[in-house]
Amino acid sequence: MLISPLIQNLMAALKCLPGVGPKSAQRMAFNILERNRDAGLRLSALLQEAIHKVKNCESCRILCEETICRLCSHHGRDRSILCVVETPADVLALEQAGGYRGQYFVLMGRLSPLDGIGPDAIGMGLFQERLKEGHIKEVILATNPTVEGEATAHYIAELVKARNIRATRIAHGVPFGGELEYLDGGTLARALLARLVV
Amino acid sequence: MLISPLIQNLMAALKCLPGVGPKSAQRMAFNILERNRDAGLRLSALLQEAIHKVKNCESCRILCEETICRLCSHHGRDRSILCVVETPADVLALEQAGGYRGQYFVLMGRLSPLDGIGPDAIGMGLFQERLKEGHIKEVILATNPTVEGEATAHYIAELVKARNIRATRIAHGVPFGGELEYLDGGTLARALLARLVV
Repeated sequence: MLISPLIQNLMAALKCLPGVGPKSAQRMAFNILERNRDAGLRLSALLQEAIHKVKNCESCRILCEETICRLCSHHGRDRSILCVVETPADVLALEQAGGYRGQYFVLMGRLSPLDGIGPDAIGMGLFQERLKEGHIKEVILATNPTVEGEATAHYIAELVKARNIRATRIAHGVPFGGELEYLDGGTLARALLARLVV
Repeated sequence: MLISPLIQNLMAALKCLPGVGPKSAQRMAFNILERNRDAGLRLSALLQEAIHKVKNCESCRILCEETICRLCSHHGRDRSILCVVETPADVLALEQAGGYRGQYFVLMGRLSPLDGIGPDAIGMGLFQERLKEGHIKEVILATNPTVEGEATAHYIAELVKARNIRATRIAHGVPFGGELEYLDGGTLARALLARLVV
């Protein structure tokens, strides 16, 4: 082999990053070794530290190094509304959109029986405990509009309604800036079904 | 801030990788922490090991963990031809193209007086020693056809010719598969100037 084994191993390890193929991995490895060694060492140290210290918040399951995350311990958030999302990235997207002042519950996945992901894997035990606390008046289901996301939302809605708590689903329809001409049929059909009186 | 400091620092560190912006860094950090922790630890360890162990080959300056790289110590390579390139990635590209059986010298950069990169920074001391060994009959200059690459090739050609060794430059012209219509004027002008009798 032309490249030395250690550099080859580094390239292979870089390919574990999402969106990084053989060519990008090669470029990254050479870039670090040629002129970015300090940044590479910092990245190595932070990867290790983050992997060892970052856990799930014991209240909402989001990734954080604290026991209870900043959002859950924030006094300004409305504790009567709980928004259920699949991933921490979804929380970021909703927070960046602004307007929501309640709390979150992060499933860290979605129900997927074929992959062996059942209610335990998406934290339903902790979720039931949250519901039992008694101050939650509404649960907003903001899982993705995929088959598995819909099934997950349906499953959680049943749990919520069994405790006489209001369960709502975020609206699905034509996105702002989207053109009807280029929209898929499923979204259009849903937008028609869910039409509102103006 | 919404994201915990440690995850934010990890995202910032990931941005040191070429081609990684804020959004990719976020995706990479969450991907590793959510479901790729083993791969992340392996990447962290390999980054550290490679940065500490990978040096420049003492014969051709390519990146490797050995004192003399595999190409330089390979008995099947023609030691009378030396191909000068800017980076290790250029060596890979030439080897993948096939056909070249000589040895390499990797500048690890190019002359760039404005950035303070002089002959020492591109290993001209070692290069002169290689020339002194006496078995080199031809030096192929394969630096990039940029202003700095051309200047570097010109500088090295003078060193080589001063020792009565043949200096050649790789051909520049219309690339295979390229269409004249879309080619830049500089390349076309060069292709015309360097035309060959058929």
